Amino acid sequence: MNKEMFLQVHERVKPYIHRTPVLTSELINEMVHANVYFKCENFQKMGAFKMRGAANAILSLSSEEQAKGVVTHSSGNFAQALSLAAKKIGVKAYIVMPKNAPQVKKNAVRTYKGNIIECDSNPIAREEMAAKVQKETGATFIHPSNDDSVIYGQGTATIELLEDYPDLDYIVSPVGGGGLLAGTALATNYFSKHCKVIGGEPKNADDAYRSLLSGKIEHNDEVNTIADGLRTFLGDRNFPIIKKHVEKIIRVEEEEIIEAMKLIWERMKIIIEPSSAVAFAAVLKNKEDFINKKIGVILSGGNVDVGNLPF
Amino acid sequence: MNKEMFLQVHERVKPYIHRTPVLTSELINEMVHANVYFKCENFQKMGAFKMRGAANAILSLSSEEQAKGVVTHSSGNFAQALSLAAKKIGVKAYIVMPKNAPQVKKNAVRTYKGNIIECDSNPIAREEMAAKVQKETGATFIHPSNDDSVIYGQGTATIELLEDYPDLDYIVSPVGGGGLLAGTALATNYFSKHCKVIGGEPKNADDAYRSLLSGKIEHNDEVNTIADGLRTFLGDRNFPIIKKHVEKIIRVEEEEIIEAMKLIWERMKIIIEPSSAVAFAAVLKNKEDFINKKIGVILSGGNVDVGNLPF
Repeated sequence: MNKEMFLQVHERVKPYIHRTPVLTSELINEMVHANVYFKCENFQKMGAFKMRGAANAILSLSSEEQAKGVVTHSSGNFAQALSLAAKKIGVKAYIVMPKNAPQVKKNAVRTYKGNIIECDSNPIAREEMAAKVQKETGATFIHPSNDDSVIYGQGTATIELLEDYPDLDYIVSPVGGGGLLAGTALATNYFSKHCKVIGGEPKNADDAYRSLLSGKIEHNDEVNTIADGLRTFLGDRNFPIIKKHVEKIIRVEEEEIIEAMKLIWERMKIIIEPSSAVAFAAVLKNKEDFINKKIGVILSGGNVDVGNLPF
Repeated sequence: MNKEMFLQVHERVKPYIHRTPVLTSELINEMVHANVYFKCENFQKMGAFKMRGAANAILSLSSEEQAKGVVTHSSGNFAQALSLAAKKIGVKAYIVMPKNAPQVKKNAVRTYKGNIIECDSNPIAREEMAAKVQKETGATFIHPSNDDSVIYGQGTATIELLEDYPDLDYIVSPVGGGGLLAGTALATNYFSKHCKVIGGEPKNADDAYRSLLSGKIEHNDEVNTIADGLRTFLGDRNFPIIKKHVEKIIRVEEEEIIEAMKLIWERMKIIIEPSSAVAFAAVLKNKEDFINKKIGVILSGGNVDVGNLPF
């Protein structure tokens, strides 16, 4: 990968994504004594940045591979993203989901014409079922975050953000599986001279924070966080990138996530999901470190059950 | 008033308002088989279009008048708008509010440095208290909707919308007091050759609908609608404009308002208040009339208690 290739990735996914707006809020800037630029991936197609990585992963395949389809295991945004990207590109998508996944998530995948294959609700059953689908259909397995083409796809949000605001001092992104943070870090490394990348992570699922400390991939025993998109684990493709290019990871408490989410809803009148609020919660928590700085914050998605809010 | 003067109004208020974005949604366009352009006044300063009219009303005063301040009676968005506009222009604002107004609304006015004067919770007490403040302070009374400079100010949202999308077939706006709808109708009349203006109104507060039918101002006995910004009555400054320039008013049921609101929240990831949803609910209700048309919809505001939603 080099800068030119990264720009080609962006060109390739452009027909399948929105160029999302960057919003600002005077009230929030006054509150943090800094200039915050929110990259609104909650306005992305299907409601989250995952559309970028999913589209790039499918477009990276040969036409022979595309003809056999793609498979993933996810019950979250990546399931919808891969389904929609596959539909738009004209490829079959097989989505392995636990039997007990919420009906609303199954419906979302069906809206985008993904083929749901149910499995028992545990990691081993999930992997086995995905392997079975691969074997039977010849579909290519695409991991929601631990995949190079997914990582580069996610990085295109940062290419756009730095095109709009080239002189950012920091870009802060949430970290769960690590695809977004790794993509953000790579794109920042290629497209900015001095901007630093920081991750925001729920304290209740802080494998990335602990991995950076120990220098090897650490695991979460529990992932008891409202930020449901960040309950996944760091992978071996993401971690080396994060280790090399991410300045630090700031951990936030559950109530800090909810507070940051509510603040953005009330002040900016936009809907973001709890995972999206984690990056801004990290800025709020360490605001003395950001005074007078220009901070890009990636609002990763807006898929939330508006009938079941934490406030 | 002429076209040139209307543009001067716009220039005059520009330093005090945001030029709000116009958003679109593929999913919504597919649903209604039309192209809908949402003018996002929910992103306006203090969260509603009322900022435009309030700013213009104050800026229309002589410096002698401005020195004595302004007074209004409102417990809603206009109270906040007049307070904030007055603060920015450097004028005193007196806000007459019922004693039992929700604390959250009083706090919002105080945030913007409005001086709250409490009164009993009935229309006569409100008028009397406003008259008393006028007499004691020399402040100019500004009505939230039934005032020419307020009407022209509200119309600037439509000037912007038609600058961005000059070939709209329809603009649909909610109607309560009638300031926004009258301003929309005047601006459309001046700045578009063929665009028609339609009002959306809650069936439970349908004085404007009935007034258009009878040709004289009708009153509501009850205003039992979730669209709290539309519980006000049509005025004698608005009605002649609406009668002359508005094509028709579409009435919507309470559940249609809630459904339209939820649809915009979920599909567009933006926060709008129930009153804002009324215009889009009108489009949904009569969608066969709008097939393949280009429709501007004014999302009037986004001030809603996110902890107390109707869904």
